[in-house]
Amino acid sequence: MKFTQQVTKTSKEVPHGEVSRNAELLIRAGFIDKTMAGVYTMLPMGLKVLTKINTIVREEMNALGAEEILMPALQPKEFWETTGRWDYMDVLYRVHSADGSHEFGLGPTHEEVVTPLMKRFILSYRDVPKAVYQIQTKFRYEPRAKSGILRGREFCMKDLYSFHLTEADMQEFYERASVAYFRVFSRVGLSALRVHASGGAFSKFSDEFQVIAKNGEDTILYCDCGFAENSEIAEVKAGDTCPKCASRQVRAEQSIEVGNIFSLNTRFSEPFKFSIQDQAGIPTHVLMGCYGIGCSRLMGTVAEVLSDEKGLIWPDAIAPYRIHLVQLGNDAGVVAAANDVYVQLQSNGVSVLFDDREDVGAGQKFADADLIGCPRRVVISAKTIQAAAVEVKHRASGETQLIPVNEFLDSVMYV
Amino acid sequence: MKFTQQVTKTSKEVPHGEVSRNAELLIRAGFIDKTMAGVYTMLPMGLKVLTKINTIVREEMNALGAEEILMPALQPKEFWETTGRWDYMDVLYRVHSADGSHEFGLGPTHEEVVTPLMKRFILSYRDVPKAVYQIQTKFRYEPRAKSGILRGREFCMKDLYSFHLTEADMQEFYERASVAYFRVFSRVGLSALRVHASGGAFSKFSDEFQVIAKNGEDTILYCDCGFAENSEIAEVKAGDTCPKCASRQVRAEQSIEVGNIFSLNTRFSEPFKFSIQDQAGIPTHVLMGCYGIGCSRLMGTVAEVLSDEKGLIWPDAIAPYRIHLVQLGNDAGVVAAANDVYVQLQSNGVSVLFDDREDVGAGQKFADADLIGCPRRVVISAKTIQAAAVEVKHRASGETQLIPVNEFLDSVMYV
Repeated sequence: MKFTQQVTKTSKEVPHGEVSRNAELLIRAGFIDKTMAGVYTMLPMGLKVLTKINTIVREEMNALGAEEILMPALQPKEFWETTGRWDYMDVLYRVHSADGSHEFGLGPTHEEVVTPLMKRFILSYRDVPKAVYQIQTKFRYEPRAKSGILRGREFCMKDLYSFHLTEADMQEFYERASVAYFRVFSRVGLSALRVHASGGAFSKFSDEFQVIAKNGEDTILYCDCGFAENSEIAEVKAGDTCPKCASRQVRAEQSIEVGNIFSLNTRFSEPFKFSIQDQAGIPTHVLMGCYGIGCSRLMGTVAEVLSDEKGLIWPDAIAPYRIHLVQLGNDAGVVAAANDVYVQLQSNGVSVLFDDREDVGAGQKFADADLIGCPRRVVISAKTIQAAAVEVKHRASGETQLIPVNEFLDSVMYV
Repeated sequence: MKFTQQVTKTSKEVPHGEVSRNAELLIRAGFIDKTMAGVYTMLPMGLKVLTKINTIVREEMNALGAEEILMPALQPKEFWETTGRWDYMDVLYRVHSADGSHEFGLGPTHEEVVTPLMKRFILSYRDVPKAVYQIQTKFRYEPRAKSGILRGREFCMKDLYSFHLTEADMQEFYERASVAYFRVFSRVGLSALRVHASGGAFSKFSDEFQVIAKNGEDTILYCDCGFAENSEIAEVKAGDTCPKCASRQVRAEQSIEVGNIFSLNTRFSEPFKFSIQDQAGIPTHVLMGCYGIGCSRLMGTVAEVLSDEKGLIWPDAIAPYRIHLVQLGNDAGVVAAANDVYVQLQSNGVSVLFDDREDVGAGQKFADADLIGCPRRVVISAKTIQAAAVEVKHRASGETQLIPVNEFLDSVMYV
């Protein structure tokens, strides 16, 4: 993509009232636009990042043996009345037609849809275990929407639901899901901790996946031995001796919850009368597990955690473009050399953003490259042409190298 | 995918009140589930088809030079008040928080979002023409939702918006978009006509893309010479001499509108004060065009048009699986041979649904293959093993051939 053909522009301004670091950087770099508080448009580069995250999530969920479906956002009021959640769920938006004849819920989560859905297909012990997931838009009323895409009123989420006959089967899947979650977070460039947390209305405990971050909403208490608890349930404080290894001191950090897994037990199969016969012919309520990853929140977390004072820093796996090509100066030779590298990269399937602007100086071009945060900034100038080379700067390390053109092309094409 | 591992099952039953042919077939074959009137879940096979349709649409929109974005479903009430549509747009669902403190529109279309969005980035004549599109979930209140996924209350749509300084530039893009539309419809297996229609509130005329279909909601009057008008504006009737070629008789047919393109003129740029300076420094309101394709409606149209009394008939390009492999009988030899073909197809990237059920007879397996409608049914039985062959039946033509196993594998792997 040529810079001059892009719809978006970088900007020095941030919308009034935008206080979160992720939204500030993503808006300035042209990845997202703020439509209103808590509601954002994904601009072309933002959508590229989100799509890459979603692809990683999809691959790992498929590898887990789950099947992808897509459930609706409009949900029948009677399903929410069946579970008793219509009246007390504050985050649930209500939808009505202009003439007032129809009222629906606008899905903040999908237990009320997936339970009666799977009841149609899971009829006996032979039909379990099964797992379905979706990557879908969720809606939740947040009274104060101040965290950018970390906590929006509309956001992209992967939610997976599993169905089991026995506790042991449920537990086995739960642990496999946890492994898949670690793979997702690692592939998008994040280091997550599995943290013991409250089970809310459904069970005694749940597990959260937390990424340590200065501006995180949560606080976790943890130790290098693997002990980690959400401060909401922790009975230790920072500096206490770790209750697990009994040797190190527990530390406290702010963090962002990027995923959670928990047992729903029979909380939804009971009201929907979803029971199957076991091998002995005894009817039993299906056990359900629920597993969430905030896909747009993952993008916001990377923006919070992997950035510096100059801008964003995308890992290769989710970068909008792998190469940010900069043409320095407008001499015919430089323009031709830059265009040649651009075409060669593109025709070999290497994604590249080409700053071909002729009315913008080196300072602004370098500042934009740092702000947008592609993994490699590649400069072509009169100087590099003389050396038959390109100047490659790695965004994460800041390391700069002069590399012969052909060697550079080989190095990025076969990665 | 093995049949016995699938979440879904085929069914002989159709939900009460479901009268549309597309929904009946898609529900019975296990592609969609009806959550409530006008609202459907995409089950694994349905989502595979929709995803393939979306990929084709995306490729053609990218080739047109448009950039993909993703705008929110929640839309600020004040944007709809700016255009004066909040009060009179019947299809617009209203959303409010449980505490009544917030009220939004739930996007039936996105002119109210895309216009102020693009106003931020299009600042002068140098920034046009530009085009953005999204593939996104739309919500429209339909008083009677009786047409399955042809007209849902929640559905998947591609909407593209273009921005121009001059009428001539707008017209040039409009015609290129029309060509791209024909490519989309042809690639998903449909034959569409470009039909002159009313321009509604925005301009005198628009163009619709209509597919002739028995159960279509629209009626078109057309001639082989290229003349085609929606009956809503036509001044001819069936049997009249064609006003264009003046030789043939005009015919009338029912049809399904699968896409439309129209000029928005300055209907939205005016209320949002979206004007730019032309080359002479004269401020002028940006001209906008709007181009829609109902992606889930396309899926429903294929189900309506390309099906027979036995079930669905998917073209290769959008089939959930290219091969429907049937193991007939449970002898060790048959099971081993079927599994071998299954593994070979899968490891070569050929999508295959493998009916490995051991408790189901040939009649039911063949009926399910016809209902699901993959392009090729491939049978492995004691008889085919003796011939070192497989029996391939083409779903569309009904033609059946006995083909040597290796020849068959070669024929599907290199297509």
